[in-house]
Amino acid sequence: MKLLEDRIVKDGKCLSADILKVDSFLNHQIDVTLLDEIGKEFARLYQDGGVNKILTIEASGIAIACLTARHFNAPVVFAKKSKTSNISNDVYTAEVPSYTHGNVNTVMVSKQYLNAGDRVLIVDDFLANGCALNGLVNLVEAAGATVVGAGIVIEKAYQGGGDALRARGVRVESLARIASMDAQKGVTFIR
Amino acid sequence: MKLLEDRIVKDGKCLSADILKVDSFLNHQIDVTLLDEIGKEFARLYQDGGVNKILTIEASGIAIACLTARHFNAPVVFAKKSKTSNISNDVYTAEVPSYTHGNVNTVMVSKQYLNAGDRVLIVDDFLANGCALNGLVNLVEAAGATVVGAGIVIEKAYQGGGDALRARGVRVESLARIASMDAQKGVTFIR
Repeated sequence: MKLLEDRIVKDGKCLSADILKVDSFLNHQIDVTLLDEIGKEFARLYQDGGVNKILTIEASGIAIACLTARHFNAPVVFAKKSKTSNISNDVYTAEVPSYTHGNVNTVMVSKQYLNAGDRVLIVDDFLANGCALNGLVNLVEAAGATVVGAGIVIEKAYQGGGDALRARGVRVESLARIASMDAQKGVTFIR
Repeated sequence: MKLLEDRIVKDGKCLSADILKVDSFLNHQIDVTLLDEIGKEFARLYQDGGVNKILTIEASGIAIACLTARHFNAPVVFAKKSKTSNISNDVYTAEVPSYTHGNVNTVMVSKQYLNAGDRVLIVDDFLANGCALNGLVNLVEAAGATVVGAGIVIEKAYQGGGDALRARGVRVESLARIASMDAQKGVTFIR
């Protein structure tokens, strides 16, 4: 998606070969106009999928999920990383190691919000080693629902998580796929 | 806001005099059509405020902020509850006790995303004792920016946080104000 790649080049910051900082428009400050275009593109890619639910994981996935869900006329469900007094015990859980936080989260979704008949589009901001996406796929499968596919904003393709998911049979559409990054040379995309 | 009050009566669950569960449409599963109407209403209430930024706190505030920001043509900034490798050290911080999680979070916003000229609308799902909103107001004031006001989806008015903020001079608009709750009798609104 050229609009997105141009924005990554303009406003993203490569801090190392691993860390791409896009918090000026994607995951701290959020450009909702850009996210609306991203949502439209996911809707175009998955228009024939019969999607009736958008699943993501807190926190930064929520913005993308909400601006995508409008284009499917579907509700969002977000997996939670910690148990609050407001969530029931009747949950599906999955273990998800977090690259940016350096820990392992048990993520959960109330069973009442994922059902056997659901056709789910999973969205997230980043796909790197695939741990989060893998966990979300496991949640959907635990519910007996169908994963229509995944909509990813930025895939660090060199980390292999996307290809592992594709090999598992999951359709993964990433709007920007990064072949390599370098603090000096910047980002190289796969097109 | 009648649409919202009706939805709370229909789908909300009073678990006690303190806990109102609205996770079927507001903070776990998210009805984006309802949130879009909520965003429109905040835009109507604050149409003359010169709002150029929407501030919220992760996680459940993000959905409301995104669907509000569209109507102001403004970006969202969300305060983070934990430090990741992607956030710089140059941050404003505030201490916020969490009622639902039973702990105290240090919330933070990168200094580059809150500036002296900003006119900020703060949005959140719940206002109870006012700790989160108070912390967000402190972040805005630390940046030398202006709090135009707060847009709250559900205010537990009997907990007093909203009135304390109003007494501090903050304009607080809550779309549903709860006078009292009871597991048997349900919710009573202030109208």
